Amino acid sequence: MVQAVEIQRTQNKKEKPSEQKLGFGVHYTDHMFILDYDAGSGWHSPRVVPYQPIVLDPAAKVFHYGQTVFEGLKAYRTEDGRVLLFRPNKNIQRLNRSNERLSIPYLEEDVFIDALKQLIEVDRDWIPSSPGTSLYIRPFIIATQPALGVAPSTQYKFMIIMSPVGAYYANGVNPVKIYVESHYVRAVNGGVGEAKTAGNYAAGLSAQEEAKAKGYEQVLWLDGVHRKYIEEVGSMNVFFKINGTVHTPALNGSILDGITRNSIIQQLQHWNIPVEERTISIEELYDYHEKGMLEEAFGTGTAAVISPIGELNWRGDKLIINNGETGELSAKLYESLTGIQTGTLPDPFGWMVEV
Amino acid sequence: MVQAVEIQRTQNKKEKPSEQKLGFGVHYTDHMFILDYDAGSGWHSPRVVPYQPIVLDPAAKVFHYGQTVFEGLKAYRTEDGRVLLFRPNKNIQRLNRSNERLSIPYLEEDVFIDALKQLIEVDRDWIPSSPGTSLYIRPFIIATQPALGVAPSTQYKFMIIMSPVGAYYANGVNPVKIYVESHYVRAVNGGVGEAKTAGNYAAGLSAQEEAKAKGYEQVLWLDGVHRKYIEEVGSMNVFFKINGTVHTPALNGSILDGITRNSIIQQLQHWNIPVEERTISIEELYDYHEKGMLEEAFGTGTAAVISPIGELNWRGDKLIINNGETGELSAKLYESLTGIQTGTLPDPFGWMVEV
Repeated sequence: MVQAVEIQRTQNKKEKPSEQKLGFGVHYTDHMFILDYDAGSGWHSPRVVPYQPIVLDPAAKVFHYGQTVFEGLKAYRTEDGRVLLFRPNKNIQRLNRSNERLSIPYLEEDVFIDALKQLIEVDRDWIPSSPGTSLYIRPFIIATQPALGVAPSTQYKFMIIMSPVGAYYANGVNPVKIYVESHYVRAVNGGVGEAKTAGNYAAGLSAQEEAKAKGYEQVLWLDGVHRKYIEEVGSMNVFFKINGTVHTPALNGSILDGITRNSIIQQLQHWNIPVEERTISIEELYDYHEKGMLEEAFGTGTAAVISPIGELNWRGDKLIINNGETGELSAKLYESLTGIQTGTLPDPFGWMVEV
Repeated sequence: MVQAVEIQRTQNKKEKPSEQKLGFGVHYTDHMFILDYDAGSGWHSPRVVPYQPIVLDPAAKVFHYGQTVFEGLKAYRTEDGRVLLFRPNKNIQRLNRSNERLSIPYLEEDVFIDALKQLIEVDRDWIPSSPGTSLYIRPFIIATQPALGVAPSTQYKFMIIMSPVGAYYANGVNPVKIYVESHYVRAVNGGVGEAKTAGNYAAGLSAQEEAKAKGYEQVLWLDGVHRKYIEEVGSMNVFFKINGTVHTPALNGSILDGITRNSIIQQLQHWNIPVEERTISIEELYDYHEKGMLEEAFGTGTAAVISPIGELNWRGDKLIINNGETGELSAKLYESLTGIQTGTLPDPFGWMVEV
């Protein structure tokens, strides 16, 4: 049941940053949402409060045992001033799947959606309107019980913070160079790879730093068992257009079930472009490229929406895709999805939720 | 270089809990140690302060991307009132290996040892002296930069908190029942399994809860690739005495390099008991048991020191070890190691460091 949300408005509104210099996750809005959980009383005391520090015992379990999950989604301001959320129900459904994997209590879908709406309403004037900008929303749950025994926490906080963000690519959508990771592994079946939990991101930092030092923006993760099947790219899902058909790794337990991924598949099907979810090996990809059949590659995620891939480097073997330029389908998908998200294109899928 | 540690003593000392009812990681001492890191200025401002909450921006990276590492060690009070630490240099060496894997800056060994000594000196009266009790020490580092971009933090806090703990087993050392995990995986080569980082523990909670529901205290982890090689038990390393020789899984990249594990190997070698670090499959273990050659099994870790294993359950096939009783060698190792730790036995290895 949705409990009444207490609203405490700030007395000191921050100065808003220039919409031309937003960056990603750098500036935060005036308010945040908090909901507490205690074993016995369940989730309670929903409130919108001024954006403020979290005060936690140093023994809080989140610091030691990483019991935490999160989500990411965006609110968009349309040209006629409406505010749209992109598929927020998918976020709470995935959050609950992550909760289950991390032994965190279930959170009701209505409570999540109501929290989003109440917080956005209070900070409505923070949603930027310049082209390419949006309000990035970060719901997350942390284990707060101060106890060093390794066991699920009896106390949690669910919070939502929000950050106005700029266009992900300052100079427009440009292809990225990707290093195919052979040493490090992000996740393995039976692990937490399909959960949106902190440890997956911590595990990827070293590989990302080493790829950057070699001149690559992100890594392409291979599976942890055979070290040859493609999983994800950085913190995005990945797609390949091969001889007219779009291929993406099937959800196998170690890949994140991306909401943008799911939307891209629906969009492709809507256009009658064949799309296959399957196991794809890196050798196979190089073979298709040699035969001239690898036409496009792109990552998908909430932050960048579509991120074209211009180069892969696997064990020193460089593969240039579409002459290192953004492919036609990648561009079309980007235009379509961002058009639906910002309300400039019709939404045949019923994805957008008005706040 | 070791910087001078500022000492702020509490004005409100807590009442100390009864040494008969300490539990594990439930009570905390009067003070804690803090050291800050900022890119540019490095580690700075070491201080011992009253035990107090941590105040962090809700966008701090530790909450979202799990960039955190920790250690665990114990201080013991000897019968003649001295205070001994067990191999603290091994902890800072491992902490730095974990730091490297998690893209956290290196911390000088001397700074770590000095921090331990200064904090213990201030809270010296918190070290319990009853048999089986000790002061559990938890050094940890968390990423504190408030930024949602997935990249290593530019700011960290290194902290030490301490908790007086009771005998791990209230009723003496008794064998535990262990469920051999076939569904979940703790870690895989290329991942973060050999780092002492939060995500490894979060990943294990579900399996542990399911094992408990089936009547088992802990899980035995198998490798993530073949699902048949033995890795760890719960959050301990594991040993098997087979036909007079002691076997333990070799450090393969996904197993934690336990300090108790290392000490047990040294102790066995000192006694001229053959010990082998190698790959051990679960089938092999069941085969040896059938032939009557599996004599003992035990876990090793800082909290319990030695934890005898009385039963394994792999896919419903129950294996009772040593009639479910503590083995002779397990008991002898427990007596020897705790004797060295508490100063009642000589320390031929030079392990103990007096504070």
